[in-house]
Amino acid sequence: MKVTLAQVNPTVADLAGNVARCIEAVETAVAQGAELVVLPEMVVPGYPPRDILFDNSFTEAVFEATHDLATQLRGAPPTLAGTVTASGQHLPHHPGLYNAAVLLHGGTAQFVAAKRLLPTYDVFYEARWFMPGSPSSPVTVAGHRVGVLICEDLWDKGYNQHPPADLLEAGAELLISISASPYRRGTLTQRLYHMRRPQCPLVYVNLVGANDELIFDGRSFALNADGEVLTLLPGFEEAVQTVEVGGGRIANCELRITDYGLRITDYDPEEEVFQALMLGVRDFARKNGIRRAVLGLSGGVDSAVVAVIAAEALGAANVTAVAIPSRYSDPRSTGSARELAEALGIHFEVVELESLHAATEDLLGDLLTHGTAAENVQARLRAIILMAFVNHYGGMLLNTSNKTELTVGYSTLYGDMAGSLCPIADLTKPEVYALAAWIQTTRGAPIPAFMIERPPSAELKPDQVDPFDYPKISPLLEQLVQENRSNTAIRRAEHKRWHMGVILKVSEKAFGTGRMIPITRR
Amino acid sequence: MKVTLAQVNPTVADLAGNVARCIEAVETAVAQGAELVVLPEMVVPGYPPRDILFDNSFTEAVFEATHDLATQLRGAPPTLAGTVTASGQHLPHHPGLYNAAVLLHGGTAQFVAAKRLLPTYDVFYEARWFMPGSPSSPVTVAGHRVGVLICEDLWDKGYNQHPPADLLEAGAELLISISASPYRRGTLTQRLYHMRRPQCPLVYVNLVGANDELIFDGRSFALNADGEVLTLLPGFEEAVQTVEVGGGRIANCELRITDYGLRITDYDPEEEVFQALMLGVRDFARKNGIRRAVLGLSGGVDSAVVAVIAAEALGAANVTAVAIPSRYSDPRSTGSARELAEALGIHFEVVELESLHAATEDLLGDLLTHGTAAENVQARLRAIILMAFVNHYGGMLLNTSNKTELTVGYSTLYGDMAGSLCPIADLTKPEVYALAAWIQTTRGAPIPAFMIERPPSAELKPDQVDPFDYPKISPLLEQLVQENRSNTAIRRAEHKRWHMGVILKVSEKAFGTGRMIPITRR
Repeated sequence: MKVTLAQVNPTVADLAGNVARCIEAVETAVAQGAELVVLPEMVVPGYPPRDILFDNSFTEAVFEATHDLATQLRGAPPTLAGTVTASGQHLPHHPGLYNAAVLLHGGTAQFVAAKRLLPTYDVFYEARWFMPGSPSSPVTVAGHRVGVLICEDLWDKGYNQHPPADLLEAGAELLISISASPYRRGTLTQRLYHMRRPQCPLVYVNLVGANDELIFDGRSFALNADGEVLTLLPGFEEAVQTVEVGGGRIANCELRITDYGLRITDYDPEEEVFQALMLGVRDFARKNGIRRAVLGLSGGVDSAVVAVIAAEALGAANVTAVAIPSRYSDPRSTGSARELAEALGIHFEVVELESLHAATEDLLGDLLTHGTAAENVQARLRAIILMAFVNHYGGMLLNTSNKTELTVGYSTLYGDMAGSLCPIADLTKPEVYALAAWIQTTRGAPIPAFMIERPPSAELKPDQVDPFDYPKISPLLEQLVQENRSNTAIRRAEHKRWHMGVILKVSEKAFGTGRMIPITRR
Repeated sequence: MKVTLAQVNPTVADLAGNVARCIEAVETAVAQGAELVVLPEMVVPGYPPRDILFDNSFTEAVFEATHDLATQLRGAPPTLAGTVTASGQHLPHHPGLYNAAVLLHGGTAQFVAAKRLLPTYDVFYEARWFMPGSPSSPVTVAGHRVGVLICEDLWDKGYNQHPPADLLEAGAELLISISASPYRRGTLTQRLYHMRRPQCPLVYVNLVGANDELIFDGRSFALNADGEVLTLLPGFEEAVQTVEVGGGRIANCELRITDYGLRITDYDPEEEVFQALMLGVRDFARKNGIRRAVLGLSGGVDSAVVAVIAAEALGAANVTAVAIPSRYSDPRSTGSARELAEALGIHFEVVELESLHAATEDLLGDLLTHGTAAENVQARLRAIILMAFVNHYGGMLLNTSNKTELTVGYSTLYGDMAGSLCPIADLTKPEVYALAAWIQTTRGAPIPAFMIERPPSAELKPDQVDPFDYPKISPLLEQLVQENRSNTAIRRAEHKRWHMGVILKVSEKAFGTGRMIPITRR
């Protein structure tokens, strides 16, 4: 059977746009001879709509959009698509919905399967809006018995329900999983390793595109019954590909799943992170109607990496980097910022902080003679300057914080913690260096050596150097965060992180909506 | 039977402190002749611990603290307390805990009931950490069959399980509900009305105290089988009171629950909100080890109300109000700010913005000639000045935004949106005026008439007046928010609200963790 894997990029609540994208993908599939087209989880409403699902007028509109999609696909091959349906169950303060897969054919939904395993960990809160589905039977498509799973249903290990086994017992000859699985480092390996013994052919279609914190990587795939990879779609972009399930192998990269893990030739973890972050920035801008971005270019490695990502994501012409040297800045900071901006072709501005810094000192006198008050005021004046660019030219401020400094709170609220989108705030300091090294190798070394080789410094007082042994403390701090643990420094910074913008998630546990830790605690 | 209602104020993760508070309450109960002492839901770990529950070392410590409490209460009357217990069930990425009530007596937990109905709406995400409990049988205490419920268990209308009916069927002669029910306007009326026909005596013990956004109001009560109020404990403070259940009526205020609602003599909704916000500010400070607060006093009604709340919550000597007039400020703004500060006895400082404003214009020139850039820079410079006070003297910045301006985004990011704690950000503009009027009546009119009578203005350009008919738009906007709906203005402000500090919740739907709406959407 010819099955089309159609990984498309929807936008939350853009129902007409999402339906149009689905139809376009089906048209491509038809041209490829599809007998069954598979679209990702929640492709009609976009994912994750979260509490918009409490708005009845929205869910009604999703039902209508799904109906509209079915109608428009009347003459097309059977198409499996993710949407929401009414469960018919009513609980207090609960929308009573299913996270559903509908099989559209002949103008109607001929079959509905509802997600059985609803994740409630990390960035997932699905029990808030969805009811767990009952077991579904395989559905016959083009003479084959097809079992339908939705995302977590396939990750049943440890649950007391086992949707894949249930479907196989019920006679499924082919398993299809529609997913909206967010990117984390190494997630492709995890997925393929988990599915290495499917027992029957398996088609896995994953959402692509970013929405706020979450970056969906696509990389949909099909496996034969032995776990051989029949096809693997590209990551971080839309793609439509048809595969003869049960047919020969058409892998477009060298994959081998073994009991020991996965080997992928040319698999580069830094490239993967870079592509993820680029998509995160691009989609945040595009889906919110933002064309431009502003960032402060300090002369350090963090802002250098953000500048590179922004230039590729938005186009160099849409990025403005501003260097704001103060009396404590090394002259090489501004010089290397200018070099980087020229190498990237982005706009570059220099605003000297001194006059404003001095005016603030004149005004506030004793308040600013020493300590954090004296240091922080510089970071905050910089944020004012950057936001003046944003307010004047439009666009968004990109934050340039890394995860290690956010973890311990070595950062200034309303200063360097400002910014609507935080592209590298889920990367530890060593991870930022690793990404910078990859950029140097693959992008013609745009980052001046000074930025990479200098000791990290906030440059907020004379000869200041960050008081951390980053290679040593970063992994230790990161381990605490990953394990939902903390130390005094982490706890004391909680109130500052509460104010952060949208942090692009690339680790298993990022700061943001997936980590719900109180400020007030002992 | 003599039952003691012990509403205590725990702190999240302060296990030793919480155990000590429980023991103190039991000692008071013993002096009152208690045969059964009832403490609130989750009193041992504090509530809500949220994702700290994913940290095994924390849950182990809670188990030990509960054991410790049992041991220390060896000679005391039976004591019912809220804590977490292991369910013995294991799901992937789930702590597998029960939100439990344990009956401690003779040094051990003689009985455990687990919460059956786990709320997942608004600020509740309990399915993330807890497993639903199975039905429990009544437990015999002092010869009486006692049925134990935990918070939502009592609010079973619409659920497909009915814990109160199950317990009555199983022979309960007395129902006890331990709760951690956050304050919202009118919540006492709702609770009493809901429970107006208990069918047997009912004891309701609610947590008191604030933790981040949530303010628990206490106001525990006991009803006889006819729904008559036997006792009602005070709101917003710790209290321990013993009542003869089944005995005579000892109501300390005039309560009458009818099918049409509740009448309480001297029940003042503004007083209730004021007490709630005061507790919210006081506990945020106390539990985080913060003594001082700084706020900007603009000459408008919002900051005036925050100043009054702060002075009562923290003590006038711990509050610093700063007036930062600009070239556009009405001289009466600063004059009335000074008057208010003097009336309250709080510190008062005036910092003239002009020199810094002019220096910023000199530096940024064309960027600041008009529009939002020119306006916003003033709000941001003010935040810098306020944060200089915070950094120099210690303490926290109190935000003075109201809910209406936050709803439409009439506010400046990193400017007047700054502040760790937002005391009135869940009050619409008319609600702020209503609270101001109540303050005038009950506190000797500390707020100068100018602040209340002037047309609302951000004073960011000449003769500027807020472009809203607040009495008209505020309720309409508020209705949209309450219904999880939106309009263009609400959606466009989503990215700004993402950065807000902790908003004290007093409505059914506040901005904050109870409202999980994506920024990126159509």
